[in-house]
This record gives sequence, C-alpha cells and structure tokens, in this order.
Amino acid sequence: MKKLLISTLVLLLTGWSSATAGNEDGSRLWLRFEAANATKAISGVKGTAMSELQTYWKGGPVVLKHQKGMAQDAYTIQSQGSKITISAANNAGLLYGAYHLLRLQQMGEDTSALNISEQPAYDLRILNHWDNPNGTVERGFAGKSIFLNPDPERMKIYARANASIGINGTVLNNVNAKPEALTTESLQKAKGIADQLRPYGIRVYLSINFASPIKVGGLKTADPLDADVVAWWKDKVNEIYKLIPDFGGFLVKANSEGEPGPQDFGRTHADGANMLAGVLKPHKGIVMWRAFVYNPQSSDRANQAYEEFMPLDGQFADNVIIQIKNGPIDFQPREPYSPLFTALKKTPMMVEFQITQEYLGAANHLVFLATMWREFFASVKPESLKAMAGVANIGDDVNWCGHHFAQSNWYAFGRLAWNPSLTSEQIADEWLRQTFTSDEQFLKPMTQVMLESREAAVNYMMPLGIHHIFAGGHHYGPEPWYNPPRIRPDWTPPYYHKADSIGLGFDRTTNGSANVNQYPDELCAKLNDINTCPENLIAWFHHVPWDFRMKCGRTFWEELCHKYDTGVKQTRQFLVAWDGVQPYVDCQRFSEVQRKLRIQTRDAEWWRDACLLYFQTFSKRPIPQDVEHPVHNLDEMQKFRIPITMYENPVQGYTK
Amino acid sequence: MKKLLISTLVLLLTGWSSATAGNEDGSRLWLRFEAANATKAISGVKGTAMSELQTYWKGGPVVLKHQKGMAQDAYTIQSQGSKITISAANNAGLLYGAYHLLRLQQMGEDTSALNISEQPAYDLRILNHWDNPNGTVERGFAGKSIFLNPDPERMKIYARANASIGINGTVLNNVNAKPEALTTESLQKAKGIADQLRPYGIRVYLSINFASPIKVGGLKTADPLDADVVAWWKDKVNEIYKLIPDFGGFLVKANSEGEPGPQDFGRTHADGANMLAGVLKPHKGIVMWRAFVYNPQSSDRANQAYEEFMPLDGQFADNVIIQIKNGPIDFQPREPYSPLFTALKKTPMMVEFQITQEYLGAANHLVFLATMWREFFASVKPESLKAMAGVANIGDDVNWCGHHFAQSNWYAFGRLAWNPSLTSEQIADEWLRQTFTSDEQFLKPMTQVMLESREAAVNYMMPLGIHHIFAGGHHYGPEPWYNPPRIRPDWTPPYYHKADSIGLGFDRTTNGSANVNQYPDELCAKLNDINTCPENLIAWFHHVPWDFRMKCGRTFWEELCHKYDTGVKQTRQFLVAWDGVQPYVDCQRFSEVQRKLRIQTRDAEWWRDACLLYFQTFSKRPIPQDVEHPVHNLDEMQKFRIPITMYENPVQGYTK
Repeated sequence: MKKLLISTLVLLLTGWSSATAGNEDGSRLWLRFEAANATKAISGVKGTAMSELQTYWKGGPVVLKHQKGMAQDAYTIQSQGSKITISAANNAGLLYGAYHLLRLQQMGEDTSALNISEQPAYDLRILNHWDNPNGTVERGFAGKSIFLNPDPERMKIYARANASIGINGTVLNNVNAKPEALTTESLQKAKGIADQLRPYGIRVYLSINFASPIKVGGLKTADPLDADVVAWWKDKVNEIYKLIPDFGGFLVKANSEGEPGPQDFGRTHADGANMLAGVLKPHKGIVMWRAFVYNPQSSDRANQAYEEFMPLDGQFADNVIIQIKNGPIDFQPREPYSPLFTALKKTPMMVEFQITQEYLGAANHLVFLATMWREFFASVKPESLKAMAGVANIGDDVNWCGHHFAQSNWYAFGRLAWNPSLTSEQIADEWLRQTFTSDEQFLKPMTQVMLESREAAVNYMMPLGIHHIFAGGHHYGPEPWYNPPRIRPDWTPPYYHKADSIGLGFDRTTNGSANVNQYPDELCAKLNDINTCPENLIAWFHHVPWDFRMKCGRTFWEELCHKYDTGVKQTRQFLVAWDGVQPYVDCQRFSEVQRKLRIQTRDAEWWRDACLLYFQTFSKRPIPQDVEHPVHNLDEMQKFRIPITMYENPVQGYTK
Repeated sequence: MKKLLISTLVLLLTGWSSATAGNEDGSRLWLRFEAANATKAISGVKGTAMSELQTYWKGGPVVLKHQKGMAQDAYTIQSQGSKITISAANNAGLLYGAYHLLRLQQMGEDTSALNISEQPAYDLRILNHWDNPNGTVERGFAGKSIFLNPDPERMKIYARANASIGINGTVLNNVNAKPEALTTESLQKAKGIADQLRPYGIRVYLSINFASPIKVGGLKTADPLDADVVAWWKDKVNEIYKLIPDFGGFLVKANSEGEPGPQDFGRTHADGANMLAGVLKPHKGIVMWRAFVYNPQSSDRANQAYEEFMPLDGQFADNVIIQIKNGPIDFQPREPYSPLFTALKKTPMMVEFQITQEYLGAANHLVFLATMWREFFASVKPESLKAMAGVANIGDDVNWCGHHFAQSNWYAFGRLAWNPSLTSEQIADEWLRQTFTSDEQFLKPMTQVMLESREAAVNYMMPLGIHHIFAGGHHYGPEPWYNPPRIRPDWTPPYYHKADSIGLGFDRTTNGSANVNQYPDELCAKLNDINTCPENLIAWFHHVPWDFRMKCGRTFWEELCHKYDTGVKQTRQFLVAWDGVQPYVDCQRFSEVQRKLRIQTRDAEWWRDACLLYFQTFSKRPIPQDVEHPVHNLDEMQKFRIPITMYENPVQGYTK
C-alpha cells in the first residue's frame, strides 16, 4: 500500500487501477493520465490539485505545501526517491505543480530526483473566445460554442486542459460583442461557467459592446464622460461582481470594424478605457483595450494602430492593458511585429495571438504555431509585456479543435504564456508525447513536421512577405484577385499585394507609406533598404521588381515560384511522414489526420496555382523549368467559391 | 515566272501567294502548306496530285510520270536541282509522291537531290469509324460523326489528310452496326461520301449487321447457308456497287458482345464470312471479319479468340481477312500481342489498332501511340499481315480529334500502315514539324514528351501488366473495385486484377488459364516462368505475390507504388515541357493543350491514388517513404462517378 501525502492530509491509496481508454476521438486532448485511484470530491483549487494527484498520480506520496514569499502561481517540485513535495504561495501554484508532475509521469520521465522551480512570465494568461450568443464562433472551425449549453463534463475537461498548461483566464464571448452579453440572463449564464472554472484557478472575463448603456440600459448616449453612463456601468459591474465575485474584467473592441467606441462621442480610446477601468478598479477588475483599429481611408492600414495609440501613451489607467495583435495587419501567416510594441513606452501592453487558424488553413491544415509566436518574441522582449491573450480554437467538436493537431496550438499558447522562452521543439515534443506516444519512431518525424509546418504554410500561401491575399469572407483559400465593386479597398488583396508590371509588394519604405518609420531607428534603416530587408518580409516592406536579384541568385519572380513549389512539396512530405507513423497511432486519429493532410496537400497546390498564375498575369515571366507547373486553370479558380460563412470550417478546398 | 510541269501538261504559275493563316484552332491538322498559287479544278486522283502541287508546291517544275512495273501505290521521287520527277504505276502512287514532296517542303528539307523510293507495306490501309446513324461516335471524344451531315470543305480536308499519309480506305460506320446501314437511304448517303473521297484514292467500306436480311430484308433467317439469305445479300451488294462502283467491302463484328452472327444459326465464323465473300468477290470486294469474340462463361477472356478461330484456320475464302485487335483483350494501355497472330498459319490477317483513346485518357490525355504500335511490331512481323486498320479518333470538333496531340495518332497510324518500320521518333518529328514548327527548341522537348507519353500512361494507369481496371461504361478513370451485382464477370476489373491477400494479377500460366500455351513454345516458356516473364507484363501472366522480388530489388508492391509515382511525375514534366515551349506555339493551341495537360496531370494523381489505395486494402503494406503518397481518399473516389456515356469526352477527371 502506498501513501499519498497532500498537505497535512494523508490520502489512502487503494492500489492501481488503469482507466479504460475511450474512443480515440481526440476528446481527451493531451490529458491522457490513466486513473490510478478512485477519486474523492474535494473543493477549491487546492482540492483540485489534491484530487488530480489522487486520481492520476501513480508514484509515491506527494506533499502539497504552502510557502510564503514565492511569486503568484509559481511553484517548486522537489523529490527524493518516491517522496515528492510541491510548494507554492497560492493554491493555483500547487495545482500547476501537480499538473507538471502528472505531465512528467505521462511523458515517462524519471521523477525520483526532481528539483524544479517554475514561475510564470505573466500573471495573466488568457484565452479569448470569439463565441456569439447564438452559439456560432467567429473564425471558429470546430463546431459551435462550448458555452452555448455548457456540458459539465466538457467544462471540466476544458478547465483541466487550461489549468494543466497554466491558463488562468478566459473571455467568454466575441470581441465583436453583442450588447446582450450584459443582460442579466447572460450574466447568470456566465456565473454558471465561472463557478465551474473557479476550482481550476480560471477567472472569467467578458467582451463588452461600448454602446451597451444605450442598447441594454436604454440611455441616450454611451459617452464615457457622461455621468449617467458611468453610473450605468457602475451598476452593471456591481451586478456582475455579485454573481461572480472573482470576475476578471472587460475586453473591449472599440471604434474598430464598425464597432461603437468613445470616438463616436468625441472621446479618445483613453477616455473610454479609463472610464471602464475606474468602474472596475474597486473590484480589482481590469480592462483589456484592443489596439486593432483601422479605417478605410488610410493609405496604409499597417500604420494606423500606431497613429491612433501613440498620442495616448501614458494616458491609460493602471488597470488598463492595451491588447495588440502580434502583427500590424491581422494574423497573417507571416507579419513583422506590430511597431506599437517597441513604440509605446508608458502603457501596459499585452500581445494577442490567434490560436484559431483564421488565415492558416482553418481546421484543415496542420500548422503548428509555436514557431510563429517564438518568432515574435525574437523581436519583442517578453518582459516588455504584461500578459498574453490567445484567440481560442475551441468548439464543441468531439476533438475540441477540429484538427487533432490544432490541439497543439492551444497547448503551445498556454505553455508560452507561462514561459515564452520554451523552444518550439520542446513544446512539440511535450505535446506529442502526452497526446500520442513517446516512441522515438513517432516523435522524430512528427516533431519535424510540426516544426516545419508553419514555414510550409507561408511557402504555399504567401511567401516573401506577401500578405492578405485570402478569399473574401472566409479567409480560407487564395483569392489575390478579389476586388468586388464598392468594397473597402483595405478589404481586398490588391490593396496589399499591389502587383503590377514592375513588381509585387507594398512600398512601406520612407518613399512609400513610411511604415518603417514606426520601428526603432536601426531596424527602420534595415527594413527601408531592399538589400538589407529580410527576404521573408521583402514584399511586406517593398514593391519588389520581378527581376530583383535575391541572395540565392534567383530573381524575385523565380524565387516566388520556388517558394510555392517548396510549400507544396513540404505538405506532400507531411503526408509521407504521417503515413510512416501509422504503426504508432490509433486507427481513428490516424485516419482523421490523414484526411486533413490530404486536404492540406491539395490546398497547397491550389494556393500555388492560383497565386502563381494570377501574379504571372503581371510578371509576364515563365515559371522556371525546375519547379512543378500549375495543374489548375486560373479562369476556373477565379470562378470558384467556397460557400461558407466565417463561422464554419470548409469541408475541403478547391473543387471544380 | 516559274514553271510547274505536271505529266505532259505544263501549268503556268502566276507567282507566289501566301495563304492567310486561319485561327490556330487545329483544324488544319498537319496540312499546313501555304498556297503558292491559285488553284484549278482537275478531276481524278492524278488531278488531285496535280492540283495539290499546283497550289502548294513552291519549288521548280515537277513531272508526274506513270511508270509500269512498280507496285501498287509505290512511287519514286527524283530531283536534280529544281527539276523533280515523281513516278508511279498508278495515280494514287503519284498522289502519295506529291504529298511526300509537299511534306519535305513543309519540314524545310532540301529537295534538290532527292532519290526516294517508297512502297507501302500493305495494299489496304484503312480507318474504322465507329460512327452511328444518329451521329454519335462510340468511344468518340471529338464531337459528333463527320458523316452525319458531311460538310464538303471538311470532307476535303479529311480526304487530304488521309491521302497525305497513305490511308486508302475508310469504314464509315460502327462495327456495332445498325441494320439500317444497308437501307437505300443510307447507301445513297455513303455514295455521296464515296464520291467526295474518290479523288483522293480512298474507297469506302461499310460495317454490316449480320441479321440484316431479317431486319432490313424482312426474311425469317440470316443463316448464311440459306439460299434466300444469300440471294438477299447478292441483291444488296449489287445495289451498293451500282451506287459505289469502287466500294471496298464489309467489316463484320459477329457473335461478339451481343451482335448477331452465323453461330446464331448453328454456323461457323467461316460459313458467315465466306458467304459474304462470295457475294462480294465478283465486285472485287472484301470481307474484314473481326476476331474480337468472347463470352461471359469463359474463365479467361484472353483465350477465346484463339479457341474460336484456330479450328477455322485455312477455311476462309481468299477475299476474307481476319481483323484481330493487337492484344487479346481490348486496347489496354499495354497488352501482349494477340496469340492468333503467330498461331494462324493459313488465314489472311490484319491488325486492328485503336487510334481513338478509349482506354488512354480519351481526348484529355496526351498519349502518342506510335510507340505502342511499334512495340506490337517488335513481336508480330509486319509481313505476316495483309493490312492494317485503325479505329478513328475523328469527329466534328474544330480540331478533329478533341486534343491537338491526338492528331498525331491519326498521323502515326497512316504512316505506320504505309511503313511499319518507321521509328516513333521519326513520326513524332515529322508530325511536330508539320503541325507546329521545326525549331529545335520546340522539337527536342516535345519529341521527348511524345515518346515518353505512352509509357507514362501505362505507369499512372496500369503498370506491370495490370489491365482493364477502368471505370464501368466510359473507360475513362480508375475503378478497380467496379463490381456491381448481376454484371458479366468479364466486364468487371476484379476479373482481371484478381487482387487478394497473396498478390495481384491474372494467372495465365500452365497452372492457371494456360493462355501462355497459345504462344510459340519458346515465348510460352519465357512467359510461363515468373522469373523470365517481362516485368512490364508480369501481372498479365502471373498472380504476382506482393513480396515478389523484382529485378530492381524492390518488392512487387513497392515497384507498383514506384511505377504510379513515376507516372505522376512524368505528367508533371510534360506540363513543364509544354510551358517551356510557349514561345514557339500560337496562343490558342498553347492554351488548349495546356488545359488538357493539366487535366492529365490531375488524372494521373487520381489513378495513382485510386489504384494504390484500393490495392493496399489487399496488400496491407505501406506505401514506400520515397514516393509521394495519395492525396485523395479511397471512400470518396469510390463514390465518384463521371456522368457520361461512351459517346462523350469527359470534361475532366476526379472532382469531389
């Protein structure tokens, strides 16, 4: 008989019991602990830690110890033989330590001589759900909202999954917020979810519609400096905190893409954010105010967040965080970092990553995003940020994320929000080992696939700095020619690629939109010169002549063709790799992933053909003989539409 | 002013006139002579020769000279400087010589020192049109029948094209002949066509329905030994010859695939053929009696023609020719030769090739068939045959054959019927130079593509001796699983591929169907032993174990995968080659051929995926890591149907 010590409580273990594995439908995520013991219900976050260990830990006694002086959520794990102690200042720290231990167990690591000390980079590690009250999920590719009719069992797995990787906050609703998010009925529902997440150390937040005082409260204005408006917000916030005492705060998309905001009343972003912050402050709530703003008149959308927010630097209340997308446009396969990150000096900032693959093949393409986020942190110092937000890729699909490998992006987001210094390889390895197997024959090729996958997607979608040449509406496939009449120019690909007989790309140099000036001097100089600008962003910052000589010796046109060709070949190699690991994967997940990889491979050809044939109408240059040539016809691709909304995953890509 | 001497007639040339090139829609075939002079109408075959030279010959005087003692249709061309003499025993010989000269001119050859002596291998070089009275063409992929409403201008080009390559006979209607082919109305129509073809040395023939005496004549029987039946045929033949004095004779498909025949009346093929031959003999007409027979009960369809015809060897009248398809099954991408060719000793034989690509991608795939026909002649001595028939690929499409490159198969058939020793390379070179350009930058890659194309099709469709795994009905795409209930087993692919857990292929060894015994002893022994059987026919003659070791060291399964992979890559290379010659091709034909090559490339992937994934359900072996892996899903491909009949060219291949 073994003993499991939890704090001062000694739980008696009745022996091993191996859990019956369910269908391999992916619903268990990376949480594949086998139940070692019968569970007992214990309340609170510490109770969760105890219960998780009691149920799944197969080793010797574990002591959970409160220890003062440690940072919030930090923990240590120390072991000597089978005796293990987890120490933390708060209960969440104990819970994270418990999951760390279970992770090591699941990965088959030796736990007999641990000396682990972990501390999160950010206090706030938060998911943004873009879920609507009707259950649709904007840019959601995994079914309906899990919050529509929250199933207690699913909520529990959701909470465990988040807690297991350190996520401690979640915004329940879409940033394009419906006013009814703040009705009493909605708040009651949010309370129910909050109650279910609380034992896992997760707080809930809400996106709000800035016009709520008008639309919900019946006021005539939502002017943030209007006393009645402020009073309305105070009452509403009091109502929320009565239901959800640990409510986290508001996420706000204001004066962006048609959403209301303080500018509608002649006020600034700071006026709006600070009013809400003032109301939330007594409750220790925060405001996450998004910097994702642009208007149709601007000659360069990439310039606008900087232009609107730089004048406000230093004017925001201390419980406001400006939430900035990683790049200056919108979650493209590759962007430079948003210049606000290095420009704002007196404003708390957080980065908004997109876990859901709005622009990266939705739930059809295997694209591991850790490498993209790590690329961001190579430019933006992690310590310059206060928090990290990730737009969730979670829905009510059995496997949660639509694509089994999309789970790895949820996982990677949590792990990087905890520790942005983790390598992509380490995260991929951890996730693969927990989710599939630790067999080297599986790990080696699939780690390689994951690490290569984002660059492959860039290659077959939009290499060399090309961006936003997606289909209108659903952002799934290529539509570089998309330019219907009377549409906002900045919602069309030609606004971004500017292909003409001379070349391709957006001139953001000092001779062009001068976007480079928003970056620090040294970097600005580097980006401004076509000969020193990184080639993987060259068409982001320059209108590159077709015959511009790249470092490899090819012309820009030739290199473009080679990049697309490389992307196609990479996806084919992913299929080969996956087929090769069949012996190590259960039948269901093997087959489901294989189908997705086949879609991805076909889509890569579609992207290559659409982009090269379309750009060729400008370049008038032949596709080099040493790459594969398009197999689809431009006119047919141009007629093709995928009949889906922004709330669905396409069944597949191009078909005639 | 130049002089053109024709026979004793001196035609005065009024100077050069360059023809205005029409649209490059392919309608001009390889006949791209530019008119050098105004034409004058001159009657008869010799008149045609004179007129063609008068119109298109740009050189000095040409003398057309009758010379006795030469073989039928043979000619010589001799030149000294600009003086040229064409000699022949008959007018057709002069015409062929004239076209030879024009061909040299079009190819840019020096004609100042010619000493050419040509003699056709066969007296009869004949097209078989599978055209129906309603205008449909069985296995026709280029529109409707050109004989439905014969356009005089089109008929003239048709006649010129045939004569230019030595074709001197044409069967106007489908071997699955409607009885109404012999009604007076139909015969009047045939007369009209015959009158148009006669000046080009082309005789017309008709396919007949053996039950015509019943169905047209109103008799109670069609028994070939019945006196009334014979009398009916005599009357009918007299009627024909009154209309068409040089009528060629009958082509007969009897007791085959449901068509009536002498066996319906207890008579033999010889009884039937000889009766018709007797009736035609006084008019110098002939009977071409097809050996394409098989019945659903047989355990090996490949055995049956031999079994039915060998007992009749020596029993056929001397104006009967047994018309035998090149292979024992049915125009597959690769077959061994039909064993009848070496077995029949006392019976005149002719080979039936299929120019129309029933089993080779219809009018969508570029497959140059000269290499296939040359392969046949490597086994069957040309001199063992009396004639050569080709099932035409001609329709009322503007470009005649549906695919610009399908014209090359019409061309190649005629050239090989004249001289089966011509190399495929020479034919490809001739055709390309006449039809496109003599520029080496064009010729080199495209000759390569043409020469490789048939082996590529074998690779991506059915390599290593696999055969007849086509879709039911239209024979376009892969359907190795096709096996609907209550169908004749020999109309299903599993009858032919016999895939199981052990291996793949039809055991035709002495332990199996003993088909090998129909071949000469030495060859029989070679084919019978799996270790000496040519690998490109191994699954034709053997049920090859999946792990059978091929000469390259791969297992049979691995080699199968490699062959399909190679086929796909070859088609991609064809696209690269074609794109590379764009500067040398007019815009219209470039674009039309490119579209077709894109279909072919996509189809090659479809074939690969369907066949490998289906056969993998038997082999249970992984696809090797060094080849590309399927991108389509088997279940989806299995649900897919192309909704076309056997009279249409599919718009494309697999789509979801």
